Order: sequence, then C-alpha cells, then structure tokens
Amino acid sequence: MKVPKHIGIIPDGNRRWAQNKGLLKEQGYDKGLDPGLELYRLCKEKGVEEITYYGFTMDNTKRPANQTKAFIEACINAVNMLTAEDAALLVLGNTDSAMFPKELLPYTTRKQFGKGTIKVNFLVNYGWHWDLGHLIESKESLKSNYYGGLKSSDISRIDLVIRWGGRRRLSGLLPAQAVYADFYVIDEYWPDFKPQHFYDALDWYQHQDITLGG
Amino acid sequence: MKVPKHIGIIPDGNRRWAQNKGLLKEQGYDKGLDPGLELYRLCKEKGVEEITYYGFTMDNTKRPANQTKAFIEACINAVNMLTAEDAALLVLGNTDSAMFPKELLPYTTRKQFGKGTIKVNFLVNYGWHWDLGHLIESKESLKSNYYGGLKSSDISRIDLVIRWGGRRRLSGLLPAQAVYADFYVIDEYWPDFKPQHFYDALDWYQHQDITLGG
Repeated sequence: MKVPKHIGIIPDGNRRWAQNKGLLKEQGYDKGLDPGLELYRLCKEKGVEEITYYGFTMDNTKRPANQTKAFIEACINAVNMLTAEDAALLVLGNTDSAMFPKELLPYTTRKQFGKGTIKVNFLVNYGWHWDLGHLIESKESLKSNYYGGLKSSDISRIDLVIRWGGRRRLSGLLPAQAVYADFYVIDEYWPDFKPQHFYDALDWYQHQDITLGG
Repeated sequence: MKVPKHIGIIPDGNRRWAQNKGLLKEQGYDKGLDPGLELYRLCKEKGVEEITYYGFTMDNTKRPANQTKAFIEACINAVNMLTAEDAALLVLGNTDSAMFPKELLPYTTRKQFGKGTIKVNFLVNYGWHWDLGHLIESKESLKSNYYGGLKSSDISRIDLVIRWGGRRRLSGLLPAQAVYADFYVIDEYWPDFKPQHFYDALDWYQHQDITLGG
C-alpha cells in the first residue's frame, strides 16, 4: 500500500453542521475535536509521517466575534489533546496579533511529546500571504533551501490533502507545500467524520500517478 | 449568472489520449490546439475577463526530448493562434533557459491584439519555485502590492481552475493566485474537449459559495 507521507487536513463544514442541527454556527467547532484525534490515530496506524491540520487562518478571523472565539478555543483544546499523543508538534501562525492565543505560544517551535513518532503541524492564525511575505524579510533563500525563507519552512511537501465539507479549494493552505498535492474532497461535514472517509481517501490515493509535476 | 473573472486551464491528458489512439505520446499535443482556441472563444462569449493556460512547466522539461520538442511546438502554435484573436497576451516563464522558445520572447511583456478584450496568460517554461523565488531578489514587497515581487505579479487572482484528464491537483499552477480558486476536474482528456465541459464547470461554479478564505 502506497501511504502518503504527509497529509493535509481541511476540517471544513462545522458551521453548516451546526445549522443543520438547529444549533448556533459557533456550536459546531468543538464537535470537531474528537474527529481530529481519531484521524490522528488512524494516520499513525497507517504509517503516515506528517499531518497538517488547518486550524484557522488570518482570513477566518474576519468572522463574527462569537465564532472567532469558538474556533480559537477549539484549536487550543485540539493542540492540548495532541500533547497527550506521540507527536512532534508545531503550531504555525502569525503570533504578532491578538488572534493568536498565548496558550499556544510554547508550541511555536516544534516540541516532542511521547515517542514523537509523527510530525503534527497545526496552523493557527496562519496566512498564505504572511507565509510567502516572509521571503522578502528573510536572509535565507528559496534557492539554497527548498522552502527556505518561508515562514513554513519547517513543514514539508504535502502528498494528499483531504477536505471535508464538499468545497473544492485549498483556501490558502500552505501554497508552496501543496503545489503537487492530490486533492480528495468528502462531501460530509467534518463533525460527521467517519474512519471510512479516511480509508476511501487512501484507496483513491492508490490509483493516483504521482509525478511531482514531471 | 455568476461568471468567474479569471479561469485557469490545465489541459492535461494529451499523452494518455494519444496512447489510447495507438499513437506515440508526443503526437497528442497538437490535438490540443483547436480545443484551446474553442475554449478561448467560449470564455469571451460568456464575459470571462482573464484566462491562464498552463502550457508547460520547468518540471515538464525533464521528459524525453521528443515529447519536450512536441509540447514546445504546440505552445508556440497556440500563442500564434491567439495573436489573431482579441487578446491582451502575456507569455510567462523562465526565459533564462534553452527550453524557452525564442519565438515567444516578444510576448513576455503583455501585447494587445485586436480589441484586446481578454487578458490571456500563457505559461511557458513556468515554475512555481522560480515564481516565488523571485520574491527574494525583488525590491518590491508582497506587503505593498498584493502579488508584488512575484514573477507572476501581472497575473491576477484565479476564481476557477478547470483541469482536464482526471487528476485532482494543481501541479504547481500559480500557487499565489490559485489559493482561493475553486477546482473543477473533467475526467476526459484535453484533446476530447467539448463545449459542454465548460458549461458544466460554469454550472457547478454557480453553486459555490465564494468566500475568499473568509
């Protein structure tokens, strides 16, 4: 079985899920915590080496304050849950903003928990423009180091992006690392995560001819 | 009708099409010329303002020489065909390489043909890494100008990417401009282009909730 080394996860559809249940939009986010942990464990079992969770972006923080508050809290909780697992954990995002929760500052350099067997990247207040913009300020060069000069230079190439919630777009997820990624979309909302979604994505990935642009 | 302002076209599957017909792989490329022109005319009719064609990439030039020669020729012919239309034409790619055909050098600054009603960008020996790498050398900043410092700074945000040939990936297409693009995949190979493919993509686009990451 061909296992993607690095999977990017876009856990979308929390608000639509909540609305369908007659809840307030912001009540959908904490329903995404258990799926995130379950998916982490499935990836570990299959031998995936790196996972990136798309927590929230600088774009997302333009939403109403009650939603913003709810997804920031969900991200803090998700990262805390992962510290109890075997993860080498990195939180990446713009810390020069009140939207970046101070609780997550300790993880902005990679920290190893347990056996640290999987690299887990969690994007929190991430922005693609912020990520690329750093190239100009950096003394490193994209020429001397493949992702050198990017804010995300500690995150490697993504093989497979899985997005829940039916939308067929990257929404700014790591533009440099995602250039060759195969993109699998699940129509169900993230809080309705089932292990079968992950298995279906892996099955589909088996049939992709990986050329890295060649 | 919600018309995407800028459509990115990935005309993939020429080689697989040729093989299915019992031809040599390199014989598939010039079968993509007429579809390219037909699609240009359909876009114009619908009021699309900008089109980007993914000609070939620096990655692609690692292929066997007979294929490389064939797709370079097809790109030269495609650009020449477009000069007879109402297009404001730009060819973008790494000209510091023997792979960039000298015939296309005159179009590396945007040139207006006919009424110049549509911006048409044609990527020729383009590389995403080359595009982003320029940020470091440039005096412009991504902060002062949205795409400033990119080699592709004259190309605007892509609303809709349409890819033929079934693969669900961007393969390095303009990573900065494609961050929010909705991504529609057609399983048929590019030489089997039908206007209905384009209409289906537009119909699908009507139902997308465009949030630009928000």
